[in-house]
Amino acid sequence: MKKHVVVRNIQRADAEVIKTLGEQGSATISEAQGRTGLLNPYMRPIYPSARVAGSAVTVSCQPGDNLMIHAAIEVCQPGDVLVVTTTSESTDGMFGELLATSCQAHGIRGLVIDAGVRDVTDLTALEFPVWAKAISAQGTVKATPGSVNVEVVCAGAIIRPGDVIVGDQDGVVVVKRETAAEVAIRGQQRIEKEQKSRERLKAGELGVDFYGLRAKLKELGVEYVDE
Amino acid sequence: MKKHVVVRNIQRADAEVIKTLGEQGSATISEAQGRTGLLNPYMRPIYPSARVAGSAVTVSCQPGDNLMIHAAIEVCQPGDVLVVTTTSESTDGMFGELLATSCQAHGIRGLVIDAGVRDVTDLTALEFPVWAKAISAQGTVKATPGSVNVEVVCAGAIIRPGDVIVGDQDGVVVVKRETAAEVAIRGQQRIEKEQKSRERLKAGELGVDFYGLRAKLKELGVEYVDE
Amino acid sequence: MKKHVVVRNIQRADAEVIKTLGEQGSATISEAQGRTGLLNPYMRPIYPSARVAGSAVTVSCQPGDNLMIHAAIEVCQPGDVLVVTTTSESTDGMFGELLATSCQAHGIRGLVIDAGVRDVTDLTALEFPVWAKAISAQGTVKATPGSVNVEVVCAGAIIRPGDVIVGDQDGVVVVKRETAAEVAIRGQQRIEKEQKSRERLKAGELGVDFYGLRAKLKELGVEYVDE
Amino acid sequence: MKKHVVVRNIQRADAEVIKTLGEQGSATISEAQGRTGLLNPYMRPIYPSARVAGSAVTVSCQPGDNLMIHAAIEVCQPGDVLVVTTTSESTDGMFGELLATSCQAHGIRGLVIDAGVRDVTDLTALEFPVWAKAISAQGTVKATPGSVNVEVVCAGAIIRPGDVIVGDQDGVVVVKRETAAEVAIRGQQRIEKEQKSRERLKAGELGVDFYGLRAKLKELGVEYVDE
Amino acid sequence: MKKHVVVRNIQRADAEVIKTLGEQGSATISEAQGRTGLLNPYMRPIYPSARVAGSAVTVSCQPGDNLMIHAAIEVCQPGDVLVVTTTSESTDGMFGELLATSCQAHGIRGLVIDAGVRDVTDLTALEFPVWAKAISAQGTVKATPGSVNVEVVCAGAIIRPGDVIVGDQDGVVVVKRETAAEVAIRGQQRIEKEQKSRERLKAGELGVDFYGLRAKLKELGVEYVDE
Amino acid sequence: MKKHVVVRNIQRADAEVIKTLGEQGSATISEAQGRTGLLNPYMRPIYPSARVAGSAVTVSCQPGDNLMIHAAIEVCQPGDVLVVTTTSESTDGMFGELLATSCQAHGIRGLVIDAGVRDVTDLTALEFPVWAKAISAQGTVKATPGSVNVEVVCAGAIIRPGDVIVGDQDGVVVVKRETAAEVAIRGQQRIEKEQKSRERLKAGELGVDFYGLRAKLKELGVEYVDE
Repeated sequence: MKKHVVVRNIQRADAEVIKTLGEQGSATISEAQGRTGLLNPYMRPIYPSARVAGSAVTVSCQPGDNLMIHAAIEVCQPGDVLVVTTTSESTDGMFGELLATSCQAHGIRGLVIDAGVRDVTDLTALEFPVWAKAISAQGTVKATPGSVNVEVVCAGAIIRPGDVIVGDQDGVVVVKRETAAEVAIRGQQRIEKEQKSRERLKAGELGVDFYGLRAKLKELGVEYVDE
Repeated sequence: MKKHVVVRNIQRADAEVIKTLGEQGSATISEAQGRTGLLNPYMRPIYPSARVAGSAVTVSCQPGDNLMIHAAIEVCQPGDVLVVTTTSESTDGMFGELLATSCQAHGIRGLVIDAGVRDVTDLTALEFPVWAKAISAQGTVKATPGSVNVEVVCAGAIIRPGDVIVGDQDGVVVVKRETAAEVAIRGQQRIEKEQKSRERLKAGELGVDFYGLRAKLKELGVEYVDE
Repeated sequence: MKKHVVVRNIQRADAEVIKTLGEQGSATISEAQGRTGLLNPYMRPIYPSARVAGSAVTVSCQPGDNLMIHAAIEVCQPGDVLVVTTTSESTDGMFGELLATSCQAHGIRGLVIDAGVRDVTDLTALEFPVWAKAISAQGTVKATPGSVNVEVVCAGAIIRPGDVIVGDQDGVVVVKRETAAEVAIRGQQRIEKEQKSRERLKAGELGVDFYGLRAKLKELGVEYVDE
Repeated sequence: MKKHVVVRNIQRADAEVIKTLGEQGSATISEAQGRTGLLNPYMRPIYPSARVAGSAVTVSCQPGDNLMIHAAIEVCQPGDVLVVTTTSESTDGMFGELLATSCQAHGIRGLVIDAGVRDVTDLTALEFPVWAKAISAQGTVKATPGSVNVEVVCAGAIIRPGDVIVGDQDGVVVVKRETAAEVAIRGQQRIEKEQKSRERLKAGELGVDFYGLRAKLKELGVEYVDE
Repeated sequence: MKKHVVVRNIQRADAEVIKTLGEQGSATISEAQGRTGLLNPYMRPIYPSARVAGSAVTVSCQPGDNLMIHAAIEVCQPGDVLVVTTTSESTDGMFGELLATSCQAHGIRGLVIDAGVRDVTDLTALEFPVWAKAISAQGTVKATPGSVNVEVVCAGAIIRPGDVIVGDQDGVVVVKRETAAEVAIRGQQRIEKEQKSRERLKAGELGVDFYGLRAKLKELGVEYVDE
Repeated sequence: MKKHVVVRNIQRADAEVIKTLGEQGSATISEAQGRTGLLNPYMRPIYPSARVAGSAVTVSCQPGDNLMIHAAIEVCQPGDVLVVTTTSESTDGMFGELLATSCQAHGIRGLVIDAGVRDVTDLTALEFPVWAKAISAQGTVKATPGSVNVEVVCAGAIIRPGDVIVGDQDGVVVVKRETAAEVAIRGQQRIEKEQKSRERLKAGELGVDFYGLRAKLKELGVEYVDE
């Protein structure tokens, strides 16, 4: 029924689009696609300047087993981001400095893992960005089959191979490969609009005026009282 | 029954008292008022040097809706701190860089929010201090009524408009407006006492001697054994 | 039945062995002892450069009461690490800057506490490393008996007085005193082996080749597909 | 600053109003007062048929210490409900069968406790209803002062002495004493309205028709598609 | 980009297959499909005898808003199970007795909701089975658009309209519509095999013999010692 | 370093003592041994009448792997209780109806597992008592070595082979084998004392009088006020 597969070739989004999305960041992107695509907020970067944008190579592992991460690295291309999930919950440190070294040798840009990582001091020194559920020195075996480049649920979001992953200090967002270009355009429009808002708000204009909220507050029955 | 109100004018504590409390910090203050007033420890600063002291302007929002934060900014004065709660639990990113820009334009000193924030890289660059339950890029609507400057429960503590809020790396404490001056005096006394303790402990004097605990340990039946 | 005791004299591991283990770090050590000895990953360092290795002086406290920490400092020797547990769960800030000052006056190297700490800005300035479950300004009393240098469970791990404690950014590991020398040797072997792995992985060799995983993947029924 | 007090006499709501509110239940009441007053959903009844309505006698305890519960029982009247909080988080079993026996001897109707209880088999046999955060056999001391009949925060809700507490399988709600009569009236109106809704929905009428939601769905841009 | 849609017509699995899967239960089914398809274990039934099998009609709601549940009921057929998710985490009681009455009028068999429910006493009396993350009396509005019969992630599992949902005391499992018949066959094979195992284990045969584990234990280096 | 062992023969406490402890229950026992020995309160019975007392046969498993439970059953004797832990956190359903059938065939009285169980409807019908951290249908493999009858930490408590395990609705307590007889005696004394307390409290005597707390309240500075 369930077959364990490694899919070698996947389609990826346009490199320029990925770069643009990476500059926009997770908050702008999630807004640009109708407040969708965010992974759960328990996914946190392991160091404050971590930032990544790339194409998802997905990995489904047994808890406590990182065999399939090794298999995944072989099918990655420069610019990819590993997205690792487990078949039941785990905080074990499935990824560390040796794997990061291997990833960097193959141009892999970062890791999003719904489990634990270790060697975070080394990963920080290597500037290899990681978003994880936990930091744990607990090691893992290489014993159980899983899959690479299949549809996964990672931290509450559906991620398909080749989808665009953008991570920053606010968390991680996934953009479907098919809509990446359109989202990037909408993101730029949003950024331009926000630039104008920023200037007016900085000058002291109130949000209730700028966004026209006074009428809404009144309509909703919010009363202003002086005491 | 429940009316949604925005209270325009609130009483605030003395500016000098607020400044003094801010220098004392949350641990000293909570001790000075009998180990009361601390918000739950899940409230964490978004960057390591965050520190704030100011008068609470309280905001009660619907989860996933930041309409009332906009309404609150209008009634703030320089030196205020926004205290935001939701009517049921939420981690959505209700506050980001645009709102922080608006806050700074009006002299608002920081934010304490029992929900999520986003744009934390920008908020850090702006040096706008925030204590929050979560970091999340998930955006919010501006659709549902709430209240400003009413009594709220924020992270387990009762906060009333005009109460003094002090936040630092140890967390957030609230001081009732009416007792702020007295707490500040007790805090100073505690700091002076601790300075003396520090010197003696630094010189190697033991806590069991300094605090006179040997008799108590004996009375409590604690036995010393050599093996 | 249960007696509250303070055990004055404990055996410690060899200082050179402790130093070696400290250089190896928690991940290497846990691997070297068969993936055992790690404390739960909720134990986190309070600042990014925290690192410690020393002999455990164990403390069992009542929640919200730090009396026994004072008793413990007297029986510590330079090079020791305090390991503090509570008899039921607590996040109260049982340890702060004054206690750290006292610890440093007696050569105590750090603290591992299955509860809360406070004054984290000061502890960071003092470079006194702490691993804790929570940061909380909530203070404690000195009223209830407990024990020093008895067997404890701390964050899920059994720790006995004199066991070696190693803490870093990946967490905390305990090494039984009796096996410390042997673990240190195994750790060095592992580090040397990893150095060779690192070079080959850096040069682009794949983990599936390097670790000989291709046969295993095949045996486990993992299929490679092209689409 | 903080004084520990036991307030002997409190005002209570009308007995008939309390009875009516008890029949309405927590969901109806929270709606009747604008979706306010609910305690956090982690507060669960210890047996499936638990149900209570009464006047709050509030108790603020040290974690792991039930001294003040004893003090509180003396100032209770028949029809009261004990509402117990701790000054920091605890799951210790602060209340068991002996205390329940004492409560029943004084006509106390139940317990709402933001901590743990024990002897739940006995409490069930006694039909003494309890809503708690945890079930734990961990006992407590009688050593630290606290207060009775002061304003408390219990599971996220402000509760004042004499407020009406209603607990059932859906959780616990607090009704301010001053508004209890009005809430009871609104609750009855809601129940009558719901009775009519129930009949029409039972007959197969759709909610989208009955509540007039078709227009709203259209206005909000929800599209109906056939595939 | 994101459109809110209500899909009226969906394909469903064969009724006989659904019935068979319902008799097999969640544990057997998850094994029969390679240990996949289980929702997170935080999804619990609201009463001990709850049991359901049916076709998923999926609903994606705003937290605190049950508008789309009303829209979903209209497109349900007898034998369907509502599967409700929210766009960010919520424990609000989005579903209660009136909605259950409406569901039963339309032959809907049960509810799986990654949020809260209320009126659990009534739902139990109605024998309307529900699996939920929380029980909460907190009510919701009918104000924000969402979708019906789109792909959703519910409690960590991908669920598509028409997939088979089976819930019991062990939790909830989803079976893809396309593979439901095959899974049912494998489930029956498993049940038959287990019946034989049961008899031999009941007669006292040991698992280590019955499953042939002695050789494996030896191969894995597990030593038997007498002391 | 770490050897995986199955210890065949262990010492057990006296059967009569175990029976007595079982009648006393977890709350009485933990008090009788100085408020020690309780497992964390997250360990809950899977059905309301579950109750057990027996000798611990301990099992240390890999998460997601129940191989060693099979090995453990062989070394059990009638009257034993299985105590299962995992080397890192897991909620997988490692134990179900077939294993319970096997256990009952060998006189094993129950299970305490710091992980998940499944088939809870069947386990309830078999009246096989289980205390667990989670209920989950997620199955496990039989692939990784572990140990039987070694010292373990289970839900925060140290348990050694042959220790007495008592479980009821309040949770689970462990009594060291060596002190079991003495604890049983102290437990009886406590029960007799409580019987007297119960009668006086039932007659309406107040705890503040009965336990002589009035003086303590005064000494601690608790003030009685009338308003």
